[in-house]
Order: sequence, then structure tokens, then C-alpha cells
Amino acid sequence: MIDYRSDNTGRAAPEILDALVRANTGTALGYGGDEWTARLQQRFSELFEAPVRVFPVATGTAANALSLAAISPSWGLVYCSESAHINTSEANAAGFFGGGLKLVPVAGNHGRISAEALRETLAAIPPGQLHRGQPAAVNLTQASDLGAVYRVDEIAAIAAIAKARGLRVQMDGARFANALARLQCSPAEMSWRAGVDILSFGATKNGGALCDAIIVFAPELADGLAVQLRRAGQVWSKMRFASAQLMAYVENGLWLRLAQASNAAAARIAAGIEGLPGLRLIAPVEANELFVEATSDVLDALERDGVQFYRRSKTLGRFVCRFDISDAETDALVTALKRHCAAPARAAE
Amino acid sequence: MIDYRSDNTGRAAPEILDALVRANTGTALGYGGDEWTARLQQRFSELFEAPVRVFPVATGTAANALSLAAISPSWGLVYCSESAHINTSEANAAGFFGGGLKLVPVAGNHGRISAEALRETLAAIPPGQLHRGQPAAVNLTQASDLGAVYRVDEIAAIAAIAKARGLRVQMDGARFANALARLQCSPAEMSWRAGVDILSFGATKNGGALCDAIIVFAPELADGLAVQLRRAGQVWSKMRFASAQLMAYVENGLWLRLAQASNAAAARIAAGIEGLPGLRLIAPVEANELFVEATSDVLDALERDGVQFYRRSKTLGRFVCRFDISDAETDALVTALKRHCAAPARAAE
Amino acid sequence: MIDYRSDNTGRAAPEILDALVRANTGTALGYGGDEWTARLQQRFSELFEAPVRVFPVATGTAANALSLAAISPSWGLVYCSESAHINTSEANAAGFFGGGLKLVPVAGNHGRISAEALRETLAAIPPGQLHRGQPAAVNLTQASDLGAVYRVDEIAAIAAIAKARGLRVQMDGARFANALARLQCSPAEMSWRAGVDILSFGATKNGGALCDAIIVFAPELADGLAVQLRRAGQVWSKMRFASAQLMAYVENGLWLRLAQASNAAAARIAAGIEGLPGLRLIAPVEANELFVEATSDVLDALERDGVQFYRRSKTLGRFVCRFDISDAETDALVTALKRHCAAPARAAE
Amino acid sequence: MIDYRSDNTGRAAPEILDALVRANTGTALGYGGDEWTARLQQRFSELFEAPVRVFPVATGTAANALSLAAISPSWGLVYCSESAHINTSEANAAGFFGGGLKLVPVAGNHGRISAEALRETLAAIPPGQLHRGQPAAVNLTQASDLGAVYRVDEIAAIAAIAKARGLRVQMDGARFANALARLQCSPAEMSWRAGVDILSFGATKNGGALCDAIIVFAPELADGLAVQLRRAGQVWSKMRFASAQLMAYVENGLWLRLAQASNAAAARIAAGIEGLPGLRLIAPVEANELFVEATSDVLDALERDGVQFYRRSKTLGRFVCRFDISDAETDALVTALKRHCAAPARAAE
Repeated sequence: MIDYRSDNTGRAAPEILDALVRANTGTALGYGGDEWTARLQQRFSELFEAPVRVFPVATGTAANALSLAAISPSWGLVYCSESAHINTSEANAAGFFGGGLKLVPVAGNHGRISAEALRETLAAIPPGQLHRGQPAAVNLTQASDLGAVYRVDEIAAIAAIAKARGLRVQMDGARFANALARLQCSPAEMSWRAGVDILSFGATKNGGALCDAIIVFAPELADGLAVQLRRAGQVWSKMRFASAQLMAYVENGLWLRLAQASNAAAARIAAGIEGLPGLRLIAPVEANELFVEATSDVLDALERDGVQFYRRSKTLGRFVCRFDISDAETDALVTALKRHCAAPARAAE
Repeated sequence: MIDYRSDNTGRAAPEILDALVRANTGTALGYGGDEWTARLQQRFSELFEAPVRVFPVATGTAANALSLAAISPSWGLVYCSESAHINTSEANAAGFFGGGLKLVPVAGNHGRISAEALRETLAAIPPGQLHRGQPAAVNLTQASDLGAVYRVDEIAAIAAIAKARGLRVQMDGARFANALARLQCSPAEMSWRAGVDILSFGATKNGGALCDAIIVFAPELADGLAVQLRRAGQVWSKMRFASAQLMAYVENGLWLRLAQASNAAAARIAAGIEGLPGLRLIAPVEANELFVEATSDVLDALERDGVQFYRRSKTLGRFVCRFDISDAETDALVTALKRHCAAPARAAE
Repeated sequence: MIDYRSDNTGRAAPEILDALVRANTGTALGYGGDEWTARLQQRFSELFEAPVRVFPVATGTAANALSLAAISPSWGLVYCSESAHINTSEANAAGFFGGGLKLVPVAGNHGRISAEALRETLAAIPPGQLHRGQPAAVNLTQASDLGAVYRVDEIAAIAAIAKARGLRVQMDGARFANALARLQCSPAEMSWRAGVDILSFGATKNGGALCDAIIVFAPELADGLAVQLRRAGQVWSKMRFASAQLMAYVENGLWLRLAQASNAAAARIAAGIEGLPGLRLIAPVEANELFVEATSDVLDALERDGVQFYRRSKTLGRFVCRFDISDAETDALVTALKRHCAAPARAAE
Repeated sequence: MIDYRSDNTGRAAPEILDALVRANTGTALGYGGDEWTARLQQRFSELFEAPVRVFPVATGTAANALSLAAISPSWGLVYCSESAHINTSEANAAGFFGGGLKLVPVAGNHGRISAEALRETLAAIPPGQLHRGQPAAVNLTQASDLGAVYRVDEIAAIAAIAKARGLRVQMDGARFANALARLQCSPAEMSWRAGVDILSFGATKNGGALCDAIIVFAPELADGLAVQLRRAGQVWSKMRFASAQLMAYVENGLWLRLAQASNAAAARIAAGIEGLPGLRLIAPVEANELFVEATSDVLDALERDGVQFYRRSKTLGRFVCRFDISDAETDALVTALKRHCAAPARAAE
């Protein structure tokens, strides 16, 4: 059994759980009034080279939905990729927390929206059309839900178009560290310097345990969000146990080491299966995910081998690398794919 | 510094964090599809002597708001005590998750609603009055927000009145264990056997760390709630780390031992200050909280001593005992109160 | 049968229906893009001596809930009288349209909130208390739901306290004309000059037929509200038929004449029953409503006479005068009350 | 100036306004407790050959959004055509009133969804996938937003697929009468007998003035909806003026005569322009709308002629026939199109 189902099937990095356990000392004011959470604000402000506000939350769904609700009125339209996690996989949390805000898919490639498509979409909506909801925000999933990564200049181009029309920019950074490790830029460059107003900062998929965070770059958004989070049941009374996890996650570059490991595993697989007959990657492998198109025979055979992964369809499989996947496991996948691609196709039923 | 501010300022029981750390092994399906969560269902069904569904959530606010939303339409009225946590302290989360449902205070004593007052309230609303919203549910906070405990027959009497009118019953069990330790009855007796349909099962205030739970006794509520929780951002992808906490919480009677300890500390203080001149408990001390009415001089003096507690007003202080408060700490409070009550009153300004 | 049940049981003023019928000519752009609606903006801006935006809506509930949603975030607290229509009679529409905003009763007399009570309520909420929702707005019902009227300086005092804390002021003017007729001031004096930001402008209860309106004094609120109204299903495609009603309502002082008539009828009854033994008005009669406390025998006898009115309780009756109630009808009520108050009390059962 | 912009730019049928004026007599209980509204229930139950509940509402947006909210939980998915009015033109009212429910486009032709596409869409969602929201309802727009009409057997086929999966069926009948006039079947056949649970019954576009209605065929939906409507600000206190309009609308076959007139006008135009070079109807003309594809030169020329219509794009125009459009007006459009289609194309700029 080799598990490529998701990066959230994996363990937590031991450093993170150690920090959680070490926070279990003395009494501390509840609901984020503790010292761990105060230090978290400071640490992340250093990390992002700006005075940010950090709000730990339980899940990426909460981070996305509540950050979108913070930047869109309830009659707002939020532009995103068709394949964006907020559009496909969060049970319409954005619509719920946003009081009815609507997600509107925008074209692009590899799970990304294109600046040009956004420009055209907005141009086709003259101001004053009240029957549609009002353009309010743009969501960028970084890395994308097909495993690709927006370049910094691509983010900046999209943000510039958005801002020219008064729209805010939210980044779904469920795999922020994977993208950062890929681009080798600074957290600031990939976020607020490129025009991002608010960030879903993912940790869980990259070795975290029980929390992600919202990072607010536009300070006027923070106070309302703080109440909204309380009302959303996302403010732990023993917040120190969450803040300690997030501190450990970024301490000594842990987050980037973890992301480099899972990115490297994905790259190793991609290299290993390059050119195999009948097999195609539908998006460039720039983070820790591979989307492999193959015959259903090949994918069926893999499943019989005990390789666990998601079938997006009969002929499309998603393979996600965890930070702690071993070379033996990646090699086993490559070997199996080579074997099955070389096999003669079965007769169609 | 002695900390009586809240039971959520305290540490987690080490057994719970140990269990969390032990869950960090192997891969496990996300979003509750793991073995820890499966065992949790089984364990709590044994504990409650009925086939319950258990949904771990991040906070008590989430547990309350989402369990109420599960049993009330968005135009429903939910009856509760004026001092109920859902009414005073959750930033109207119930109204939010419930799509506009409204909380309606019902009279009673010591933070509890009275069966008779509920009966009269309902009798005053003839069926068919559409301009009010529709009676939908009753909330019982056990232990109450003034530190009192509903007897089992009181719960049953309220539930019977509710059900005669078609209302559901939700229990806010943020201090469920404290009430159970007090009543020395079984979990089933204090919940579904007395008519409770759905329970906010608190752990955080009683030595937990990062999760509480919703326990569903009425099986028809569970499937809708499961989607609602996903959409609410309350379903961790690495759920095993939450389920492991809850398992450890109830294992070997830990939860009851913790609650007995904090209850005993409160009782020790209550006994120690009984009869002090100018000092009055506004509710019986039946769990781990004391609400002490005294002159503002006495409360001011306590604060100068370094005793931390919440001033509900100049002359009303709330003192909450954590599971790990020491006899030395409780004795110190008693001693200080004795000293200050004996002091001659300052001249009024 | 004499009908004192409500002012909404009455007819429409014929002038209003005439105008509606006269608007049935030619084609006109939908959703408020017509000439009638354009003229309405101009006419009401003259009437209120300021550049207002007027949005016709179907009902007073819509006007109240949507105007409150325009001035409060979804986590806001809206202060109002315990007996305010928004609190007692709109099925929690404010909570629904406001995404969970919460109504908080403030003390006062005769259905009005008191400036002093508001000041104390706000003073008791230190900034930064996130567990309560955030003070956002004040609602004033003019005339009040007990038939009293706020003086202009009372409105201004309340608004000043609200604004010192950053709160907005909404007026529920379901009986705006009745209050205006009573105070004999200008519409501007009783609204924006006294600090009102947004007004539910009632017409239905005072001889209207099928529409009320929201009048926006704070221009920054109008554009968002326009979309919200569309989404709320409150923007008629054939808006001209609504705008024509509202134009006729204020043309040539019609609205004030209608209100004077119903106010005068109420005053006539109040004068007629003054000093009757065992009968008490629980609030001053300053508009078109009387709240009469009497023995249940007296109220029962009135009902047997065929007088229709609402029993708020066994011993409290509400009597509302329509604009077209006749002197014969008011005299009949007075005569009946005199007769029943003079009768010997029945033996108690 | 000839106006083809919309059927809501037109006048109301005089019979409807006459009835409204005639209802202005005597007093009547508010909020639908009047005799006009009681008769409306009876009359529509006869018309639909079943005991229906009829709720007058202000707009079609309200009718659609509230009927969808009545049949879907807030985490529901509602399937509809990409071009459905609820999806394109109601500012996401469905998402708002439905507490976050999500609209999901389904393939089909001419603004209709196809039974087969619905079957495939549902088959692709295995039960128990909580991250998507849950399939809850199907919306059919009759006539479609491209002017086509579902046959009765097509409705029945779609409804059968929906019901096999436990989904409800809502019909957006903004042009219900136009479709009925086309199919020459009974109201029952085109609605509940074919599987429709709840109907947005349009009147405004077909000669109505200020109201449409929701018609409930599934009786268990009615009581909750009644409260929801009150809370939505859609229950007029002087309901008689709305009910009287709807009575007049269906009396003596008025609604069908009006629809036949506008359908006939559209058919007359379609026949007149058939075969014109460079001109194409993108959907069959089965109701009162024509969607005409032509060169931008032709459409520009029409606009210069003073013909008013909506440009869906440079080369697509929507022409809607009102019930009172004259033969002279339809002939003028045909003549103009003939002339412009015959003209030599301008040189491209």
C-alpha cells in the first residue's frame, strides 16, 4: 500500500506536535489573548516583512470562506478558476459565510486563471448592472488545484487588473509553501507585494496537524474579521495550542524543508515517467501533485498493485506527494507505471 | 497570581496530548475517514448506551451554533436562559449559522430555564402566528452559566413540554462532565433518556486542548449536519488528531476525574467562605464556578492581591476552578476573602 | 362591526389608486429605469430638502430589514425598543437580511428608547469585546409601537450618542406621517437633520396600497442597497406602478391630511374616555393608536358589541384609527366604553 | 420608437387594474387574512385541479428564490440551465434566500436542460460526497430564457430522474402562460401532473402589474414557506390588492388571451423574417421571444431606426413581444430587417 491520495492523509511534522506539547504550561488568557499568539503576530510580521495580522483557524475551508467574506459584500462576485478548491470542494462554504456571494469561473490553464480572461470578463460587465451581483474579488489558488504555480509577475498582473476595477485579491495558499519552494522568492513577493490583500495560509497539507491561518495584509479588514471568526466558531479558547503549531511550522525554515521534500518527490516521479507511451501529465508538475492521464487499464492495474490515489475519471488519476514519502515509494510508483504502460492493452469489453 | 478567570485558561490534561502525539503514525484517510474517528463513534455509542454520531469540532461556539442550526429552521425561535452562553457570549453564532434563527430568553433561576416558564411562554403563542418566527427548539446549558446544575427530572420535564409542542432539545454541555460528576448519573440519563436530541459535548474547559464535539442522538439529523459541518469549515482533514483527543478524554474515566477535581475545588472555596459578612453566592455552587457578590472594596482588594477573576460588575465576581488548581490556591482565595470581608469598609467617595 | 384592528385593514386613498391607473400608459424601462421613478427621486429630494435616494419596496418589513442590513455588518448589534416592530413582529427579518445581526432591547418608555439608557448600554461594552457582536446601529420607531412620538430633540440626542460611538441611525417610519402631523415639523427636521441615516418610509398604514419605501440620506449606502434590493426580490420590473403610488401619496399634502385624520380620530377617542373609572391609557395618544388597559369584563363586552381590536392580553386592548374612520365610529367606541366601565363588575369566576 | 426590450416594459391589462381598484372597499384583515386571498386559493385550486396554496409575492425573483429555498437545504445543489434567469439575472437571490445553496448548470439546448444530461450529472455524484453540497432540486424555466418551451413529456422525464434521486422540481413560470398557450394543455398537465412540486407563477411579464405568485403543489412545503415569506418582506399587509390582481389575471381566460397575443406577434415576426440572408434564430420561437443572430451592421441599423431591443452581443439581439404590441409594430420590425439584410455589407472598419 503506497498512499498518494492526498497530502492530508500524512503525518504531522514531529516538531509541530512537540511545540504543541511544550505550550502546555501555566495558565494563559483565552481566545488568543495569550503570549504564544502575540509572538505569532510578531513572527509572521517579520516573515512577511510587513505588519500582518494572523488568525489561526481550524481548516483551509474556514480560511478561504472567511477571508472571502471579509473582502466581498454579500452580493459580490468572486472570480476563480473552474477547478479552484473553493469552487469544487468546499461545499459552497464561500457562499455560506459570504451571505450568498457567488463564485464565477474564469478561464485559464492548469487550474490558474489568466489575466487576459479576467480582463475580458470584467470588461463585459458594465458598471451599474444590478441584476448580476457586483464584481468584488479574485481568488488565486497557489499552487493551483492542478499542481501548477503562478509566477510572481502573473499574480501581479491579475492583481493589477482586479484593483483597477476596485476588486480585492485573496490567495488560497493551501500549498503556499510548495509554491514558495518552487519559486524561491520571499513570502512578501508572492503575496502582498504582488497585490494580495488576504491569504489563506495552509499548514495542514504540508506537515501541519490541526490548524491553518488567515493572514491579513490590508489592515482595515482585520477587526471585522476578528468578530466574524469568533461568530464562526473558529477562535479556540485555548488558542496557544494552535499558535504554537504555526510558530513551529515556520521556525528554522521547517515549512520550506517540508515543501521541498514533497515537491522533490513529485518531480522525481515526473522525471521517471516522462515519455512513457500512453501517459500524459495534464499540467506541469510544479508543486507536489501529479495529474496523470492514462488508459483505464493502466490506472486499474495500479490500483490492483495497492497504489492509493484518486481517480478523477476512468482515465485521470491524481497523485499527491506527502513530505515524508520515501524514495522507495516514489520509485515503486514509477516502476509500476513503466510496467503497466509497456503491457499490451486489454481487449475492450 | 492565582488564576480564576476561566477554565479555558488552563492546561490540557497530559493524557490528551499524549494521545494526540501517538496518533501521528502512518497515513489515514482525510476528513474523518480514518480509524481513530471510526473508533470514536463506537466508543461514544458505548458510553451513551445508544448508537450516537460524534462530530469533533474546533470550539464550543461551533458545537452550539451548528447543533441549533440542525434542529431549527431558519425562521425558528430557540428558547434559552437569559444568561445562556449562546445568548451572551457567542457573537450571535446561532443566528448566523441558523440563517437568522432567533434566541428567546425564558425565565428561571440560577441560569436555568424553568419548565413552568417555558410552558407559559409556549402557551402564549397560538399556532399560526407567522409574524414571530416559529417555536423550534430549547437550549439547556448544563452546567448553567451561573454554575448550577439541572437535575435529570428537571431536564425531562422541560423536554416533555418542548416535545409536546414539537420542539427539539439541545444541550450546551460545555461543562457536561462537571454536571455529570455532580449528579453521579450516567451520560445517557442526563441526555437522550431525558429527552435531549443533540448535545454540545465540551472537553476544552475540562482539560481538553483543541476540540469539542457534537453528539447526535436523533439519527435523522446526522447526515445534513455532516454536510453543514464541512461547509462550516469544521471538518479537519487530519481528523485523527481531534478524534484521538476525544478518545483520551473519556478513556478510563479521565473526564470525570478532571471534573471532580474542579468541582471539589469550587466546593472547598464555597465551604470556606460560607457565612462571611457582606458576601453572597448568587447561585448554588454545583459545578466548578462561583459567582460572588461582595462590596467593590472587597473585590478591588482581591485584585490588588493578584487574584485574577472576571468582574461581571463592580460587586459581582466570577471565579472558575480549573481541574489542576491546587489546594494552596483555593485556600489562598478563601483566606484573602476572609481578610477583606473582615476589614472595615472604606469611606464612600 | 367597527374595525380598530389595524391601520392596514383599511382602504387605500383613492388618489393613490388613481395615480397607479394613470401610470398605465406607454412602455417604460423596467426595474426603476422609468420616468415615474426618476421623478420620485426629484420629488422626495425636494420634500426632504436634500439629495435623497428613494427605493420603493413591497412592505415595511422589507424596508426595515434591508435598511438595517445596509448599516450594520452581519455581526452587528442593533439597539431598539423591546416593543419595536422589528423585534416583535417581523419574524426576525432583520436577523435574516442582516446575515445574523442581533437586535438588543434598550430601556425607555412608551415604546421609545431613552437616550440615557442607550448611553449606559454602550458604556457597558468596552471596545474590543469580540464575543458579543459589535454595536452597529440604533433603530427608532416613529411613531412608537405604543402610539407615542419622539420629539425632534429626543431623536437628536439619541443620534448624537449613537454617532459618538460610530453607530448608524435607522428610523422605522411606518407611521412617519402620523408623527410628522403630530410634531408639525418638516420631514428633514424629523429625519436627517436630527441624525437619521436611513428611513423606512411607511405609506401602507396611512392610506397606501402596495408599497412603502426606503429613503437613504447617507449617499454611500445607496449603491450597495440597490443590489441588495434586487437580490431581495424587492425591485419590481414594472416599478412605475409603485413609484406612481408614492408620488400621489405625498402630492398636495395628501399624506399629512390622511395622518391628521387618523390622529384626530384617536385624539377624539382619548378625550372621550378620559377619566373613565377602571380604564387607563398605558401610553400618551400622540398618533393614531390607543392602548387601553381595562378589566377583562370591559374588553369582553366590547368584543360582544362587535368592536374589532387586538387583545394584547386579557386586560389590554390596542385600538388603531384608520384615515377613513368616521366620527360615528369613534363616538360609538367611546359610548360603548362609557357604558361598560359604568357597569358593575361581574363576579370573578 | 418600437419597444422590444422586454415584456416588462409594457402596460398592465386594464382588467387587472380595474380589479385592484374594485378591491378598495371596506376593511379587511391584513397579511392575507382577507376574503380576496381566500377566494384566490379556491380559484387556483380549481384552475390547477388540485388543492394548491397560492402566495402572492412582489416579483419573480422573490418567487424563484423563495420557492427554491423551500425545497433545498442550505447546503443543496440546484440544477438549472446555464442561461436560466435564476443563474444569470437575479443577483444570486437563490443563494441568498437559500442560505448559500448553489446553482449548478446542466447541459441542454435552447435554454432548456436535457433529461439525459441531468441523469449523467447525478450519476457522477456518488452519495456521501460531502465536499460538494448535496443534490437537492431541479429548476425548469418555462418558457425557457431563449424562448423555447419544454413539452409535457420532457418535463415529466426530467422530473422522474430528479425524483428517483430524491430531488424536488421547481418551475420558473415567469412565462408560464406563454408556454401554456403554446402547448394548449391544462395548467395541471404542465405542472404537478408532470412532477412539478412548486411553481413561480408569473403574471407581470404577461400584462400583470405588481405581483407574481408562488403556487405550492406539495402541501408539506406551505407552512414553512408562509413564515419565510413573512420574514422575507413579501407579505403585503393589504394583500387584497395583490390577490385581486391575480384573480383578474386568470378570470375568463384573460391570461391565455394575453399570452396568445404576444406569442402570435412573435410567430408573425419569425414567419416574416424566415430565410432572410445572414439572419438566424438561435432557438425555435415557441413563446413571445426571438433571439436573432445577424451581422452587427444589421443590428446597428435597426437601432438607428429606433427599434429598441437588447443586444446580447454585437451580433445577437433579443426581441420580446408584449401582449399589446400591434401588427403595425411587428410588420415594421420585419420590414426593417428585410431592408437591412438586403443591404450590401459595409466595409469593415
